[in-house]
Amino acid sequence: MPGRLQRKAIDSLAGGDLADFKVGVDNVIFSVDTEQNRLLVLLVMRHDDPFLGYWSLPGTLVRHGESLEDAAYRVLSEKIRVENLYLEQLYTFGGPNRDPREAENSFGVRYLSVSHFALVRFAEAELIADGVSGIAWYPLSQVPTLAFDHNSILDYGYQRLRNKLEYSPIAFEVLPQTFTLGDLYQLYGTVLGPDFADYSNFRARLLKLGFLRDTGQKTSRGAGRPASLYCFDADAFEPCKDKPMVFI
Amino acid sequence: MPGRLQRKAIDSLAGGDLADFKVGVDNVIFSVDTEQNRLLVLLVMRHDDPFLGYWSLPGTLVRHGESLEDAAYRVLSEKIRVENLYLEQLYTFGGPNRDPREAENSFGVRYLSVSHFALVRFAEAELIADGVSGIAWYPLSQVPTLAFDHNSILDYGYQRLRNKLEYSPIAFEVLPQTFTLGDLYQLYGTVLGPDFADYSNFRARLLKLGFLRDTGQKTSRGAGRPASLYCFDADAFEPCKDKPMVFI
Repeated sequence: MPGRLQRKAIDSLAGGDLADFKVGVDNVIFSVDTEQNRLLVLLVMRHDDPFLGYWSLPGTLVRHGESLEDAAYRVLSEKIRVENLYLEQLYTFGGPNRDPREAENSFGVRYLSVSHFALVRFAEAELIADGVSGIAWYPLSQVPTLAFDHNSILDYGYQRLRNKLEYSPIAFEVLPQTFTLGDLYQLYGTVLGPDFADYSNFRARLLKLGFLRDTGQKTSRGAGRPASLYCFDADAFEPCKDKPMVFI
Repeated sequence: MPGRLQRKAIDSLAGGDLADFKVGVDNVIFSVDTEQNRLLVLLVMRHDDPFLGYWSLPGTLVRHGESLEDAAYRVLSEKIRVENLYLEQLYTFGGPNRDPREAENSFGVRYLSVSHFALVRFAEAELIADGVSGIAWYPLSQVPTLAFDHNSILDYGYQRLRNKLEYSPIAFEVLPQTFTLGDLYQLYGTVLGPDFADYSNFRARLLKLGFLRDTGQKTSRGAGRPASLYCFDADAFEPCKDKPMVFI
């Protein structure tokens, strides 16, 4: 067994094998254009190497004294003005060679991405053009090849969005304050695909959960008879929030 | 608007504000001693500063060319011999000053932890003592103050374990190959607390899910009539694995 000094030497030798990192945050920011039934993701066009001219997820590198979450909010606030948003950590991508700034098999700095997932109301969100970077809400079905491993990060984010729709009341973060059950069904269909569930089963299940409140108001859009407007009753949901439940 | 050269200068100025990181992985490794009905977490005693002599989650720093997941498996294989295990990324903890090796408000290196969550079968797992570090399965209820922010990481891991029991067939990763419904109920109670559900409701719900297969064998432990032994039918579960479901 090595003595204390020997061990220190071994430890410091091992320390030389440790990778040095810069840490980025990349945000997968979804929105749903409920009028056009489109699932959208916010992309920005890079104006620097590497991947000059490629679309990418909005991201930044973490600064001295800054938390991961603060960095995620900082890049969000640089790209979009929004009243409410839902943001959570998604996944950390940190394999070697995920960024071409790391030389192949080099002992240089590595770039790690702590991805975050956000959801904003389309009608409330205002994109900020900074005069240099391109910025756009991209329909998910039309997303091109992105910079770095951002297509993989986006895939992961999309899977999280689907899961959250199934298990949590996240839909009400993107719907207007009042909505019809048809609006809600359409939102689910926009994200999950049109065949995700039969409408009458969906309607029955959501109403049974007990936190959709009928506002007493009606709407009459297009043909058909007026539909009831509902709102999400956060107080009724509160006691259920730690219980497992399935929304669809 | 700044010209191209000016912008380069601005970018490289901003680059000086970027934090430098070492990246660690810390593993929350749970097991359930099904005979004694104890939920256990694997802890190791530190034999270096900082937090010399404190218990901590088993962790390591990521090396050149090593992926996050490989680092997580490496530390696991140094601490425990096990045939099967379930491992997934948990959460990334990276706020400033989470490690005392970062001087307060310093511009030195920061330590980020990509925590992982693992579950192993108690009877199959063999702890590896390396002659220096202490190592122990700690009952969750008796975990002391841990090094760094490891109590927070452990709390987060425990919440993940609870959620996964509710939504996924993770229980079968820790139960023996064949088990009684009473064993299964007890496992859930050990993790979630004894009042998590009524036994007959639990039994009915689990059987209705359709992937517990009666092996035709019986067991007779203690008093009472012999109980049927079940196994998890992975083939029957396969078509359901992407569907939302609630186990309890």
